[in-house]
Amino acid sequence: MAKRSYPLAKVYGLLEPGPVVLLTTARKDRRNIMTMSWHTMMEFEPPLVGCVVSGRNHSFDALRATKECAINIPTRELAKPVVGIGNCSGRSVDKFAKFGLTPVAAAQVEAPLIAECYASLECRVTDTRLVNRYNFFILEVVQAWVDTALKQPQTLHHRGNGVFFAPGEAFRLVSAMK
Amino acid sequence: MAKRSYPLAKVYGLLEPGPVVLLTTARKDRRNIMTMSWHTMMEFEPPLVGCVVSGRNHSFDALRATKECAINIPTRELAKPVVGIGNCSGRSVDKFAKFGLTPVAAAQVEAPLIAECYASLECRVTDTRLVNRYNFFILEVVQAWVDTALKQPQTLHHRGNGVFFAPGEAFRLVSAMK
Repeated sequence: MAKRSYPLAKVYGLLEPGPVVLLTTARKDRRNIMTMSWHTMMEFEPPLVGCVVSGRNHSFDALRATKECAINIPTRELAKPVVGIGNCSGRSVDKFAKFGLTPVAAAQVEAPLIAECYASLECRVTDTRLVNRYNFFILEVVQAWVDTALKQPQTLHHRGNGVFFAPGEAFRLVSAMK
Repeated sequence: MAKRSYPLAKVYGLLEPGPVVLLTTARKDRRNIMTMSWHTMMEFEPPLVGCVVSGRNHSFDALRATKECAINIPTRELAKPVVGIGNCSGRSVDKFAKFGLTPVAAAQVEAPLIAECYASLECRVTDTRLVNRYNFFILEVVQAWVDTALKQPQTLHHRGNGVFFAPGEAFRLVSAMK
């Protein structure tokens, strides 16, 4: 995807609709990817994102140790790898190799970006107060990359038990909300 | 909507795809509704939900004081009231009356449920540690009601600036994920 630098003030519109995302980390040159749906925006600018990364995930240790990651937003064409990535562990597998995804160097963090995703958000962990109790990390998005040619990206949304949908046609309502 | 009691273990599938929701509260017989998109699942069972309720919202004080609310999930037919509710304040308006919505008594909390929404989750605030810093409340869902006749509810998903989508056709992928 032809991603360009994207204004941080507009990042909320990428995550607020609830897409499944791919979280990338790197630790001692070991890169990894995990599938994640439990995230929320917490502030517009600088954009803050809260997310749950279970202690059962290999990514948990890397995220806690390096305090860096990237949130990559896949579209429907990547549905099979997205599910596959959620069904195996980085302990035993290089998921970039296994699923034919292309790591791209980030600008501000060590975690790699995924070339095949239409958006990638470079993040730093800014608050770990709820990690012990809930595995909940608060991230600050420090750099965003988006392929803005996709006007209605066909993001993946999980209803549970392997049932997904992608967006139908967008529609506009007059709103004073951001 | 003909809602029935719904298993708490399945609640995550309602919120994980990122729908816009209507948060209801009640304080000293003053009921209110606010529109919210910044929420995430945090635990399967009992279901925990984290959400941002800005201190600028009238609902903030009621939520903090009563530690109770309901999360109501609207479908596309309610798009206009959903936006309208987000564009006015409960300080000066009874939003149930203004938008022609029907309050229904909840089983376990004082906050009213919205009859016109296809799902309603009765919630208690269980953790306020991040309220001062981020306006972030952690809720436990104590009772869920869903109209299970809707197999693919046309929930609303906000891309920012009044642009929304509803789900396209659902599809299934073989997954070991919950």
